[in-house]
Amino acid sequence: MLTTIETANWLNAYNRYLIITHRRPDGDTVGCASALAQGLRERGKVAYVLYNPEITPRYQPFLDDYWAPEDFSPDKTITVDTASKDMFPINGAEYLDAVSLCIDHHASNTNFAEYACVDEARAACGELVYDILLSLGGKISEKTAERLYTAISTDTGCFAYANTSSDTLRIASELIKVGAPHTELNKMLFRTKTKSRMKIEGMILSGLGFYFDGAVSISTITRKMLDETSAVEDDIDDIASIPGSIEGVLVGITIREMTSENDCKVSVRSSPMVSAADICARFGGGGHAMAAGFNLKNSVAEIQGLLLDALPDFLPKL
Amino acid sequence: MLTTIETANWLNAYNRYLIITHRRPDGDTVGCASALAQGLRERGKVAYVLYNPEITPRYQPFLDDYWAPEDFSPDKTITVDTASKDMFPINGAEYLDAVSLCIDHHASNTNFAEYACVDEARAACGELVYDILLSLGGKISEKTAERLYTAISTDTGCFAYANTSSDTLRIASELIKVGAPHTELNKMLFRTKTKSRMKIEGMILSGLGFYFDGAVSISTITRKMLDETSAVEDDIDDIASIPGSIEGVLVGITIREMTSENDCKVSVRSSPMVSAADICARFGGGGHAMAAGFNLKNSVAEIQGLLLDALPDFLPKL
Repeated sequence: MLTTIETANWLNAYNRYLIITHRRPDGDTVGCASALAQGLRERGKVAYVLYNPEITPRYQPFLDDYWAPEDFSPDKTITVDTASKDMFPINGAEYLDAVSLCIDHHASNTNFAEYACVDEARAACGELVYDILLSLGGKISEKTAERLYTAISTDTGCFAYANTSSDTLRIASELIKVGAPHTELNKMLFRTKTKSRMKIEGMILSGLGFYFDGAVSISTITRKMLDETSAVEDDIDDIASIPGSIEGVLVGITIREMTSENDCKVSVRSSPMVSAADICARFGGGGHAMAAGFNLKNSVAEIQGLLLDALPDFLPKL
Repeated sequence: MLTTIETANWLNAYNRYLIITHRRPDGDTVGCASALAQGLRERGKVAYVLYNPEITPRYQPFLDDYWAPEDFSPDKTITVDTASKDMFPINGAEYLDAVSLCIDHHASNTNFAEYACVDEARAACGELVYDILLSLGGKISEKTAERLYTAISTDTGCFAYANTSSDTLRIASELIKVGAPHTELNKMLFRTKTKSRMKIEGMILSGLGFYFDGAVSISTITRKMLDETSAVEDDIDDIASIPGSIEGVLVGITIREMTSENDCKVSVRSSPMVSAADICARFGGGGHAMAAGFNLKNSVAEIQGLLLDALPDFLPKL
């Protein structure tokens, strides 16, 4: 395992980098990839990001200047915020066994790369990239700060989630000081709802199911709901946090139909006394202690049944 | 105008303090009053907070140890987060012309006290109290940190509002470092919805009105809605931010029936290009540039009409 200083030294030793984001790219992987590419370029390196076919309009602008040309031949490849090989983008197959460095903050990281800089105590992978860029020397530019602020603020729900630490806020404070446009970013990322989001949130709030005396809340997002509200991926960003946000709920679960009715993604959010990661591990998934997930080829109703059967093993005994 | 250092020197000079919170007490006034009382006590002073009859269950626990006995006779009285005399609590009449020191961050502060420490550049009054306690010397205790974190995080919407600065996050980072239980506070203040809140939010989202090509959104909260959802004051905390959070909206307005159908409170939230304070000043109110309010003795429908007539004067010309 490399420290952030050792990682900086390693980065200093080569010249041409290809950075890989994860499937269903979020603010942390996008912010880290674009900040690292920008920071490396400002320090005389050649750095690009592998195109991610699932990039959404919300995060696209952060990466516009960094997509790798098709014929780019890197010295080294780097993944950011990627816990395991299942999280590679669909066009990243050729790199599955050829990642030089993995920078990540998932406890479930499977150590798939030649070198790893993994720290599960960090709220966001962006905190690691910030420390690495500082160790590389030189200033954190406005462009880099904007991207790192995006990474850190999105992975902490704008500093409200339990992963937020004193260091998280210190780093965010520094990023604002060097020019991260936090007011505009906060407005876009946390304080603006599209009308589609407004509609689907209304549906979710009125359709929540409560179980085990209100300790568990389950929300379902069907393809029909997405069609009716014209919601796109950006509209349902972080929507998995809703069921866990109701008073008294210890485990909040969101079951979402993906490409078909029998292909679901399940997101689990929990309180400190219940391990979301353990619940998801039962179904072949993983993640953080209080925020994890898994995919299952079953209908929403079947998955709900499987979860309700399994949950008593994980809930606190009363 | 006193600096925070001069304010600390002033506080050092006397011994017995009565601190006054404002009407409809929010996290900032409650956090400041209780933190200042606690901080002064830790520094050898006698300090109490005047009972506020409008204190809500959410904020009550922060003040439990500080309510002034009826026969308390202070050397000096201090208001926190109070912009003008109309913001005094109903039982504070005897102090209207007898405030020794006003600590505040409202641009609309009317300078009603003998001494003032007012800085409108601060996101929360809590930032000023933090600096004052630091200047008084000694450590910031866990109990004080918890209250100051509450003040600062609530007034910035957990660091998402436009008033948040690099200093805001730096101070919050320091408060966590000395023991503010931010995870529990964030969960309670920002990440937990009661079922009443869930219901009334659903009603508001489905009842929003849009005007001026979507530049203005108006939400109404009637007494009937409050009765139907059993919502109490804590359930509708910060609910005025909803209409302004829809994409494209420049001015988000919430009209709420208070004690009767003809006694309304209007909250206005705006984007940088529109002054909420100017709109509210037209109706005898005030506040911050992007978050202001006023009270009017009229029906919801009449107030909506008055606002729609007045708004063209304040919206950007297309």
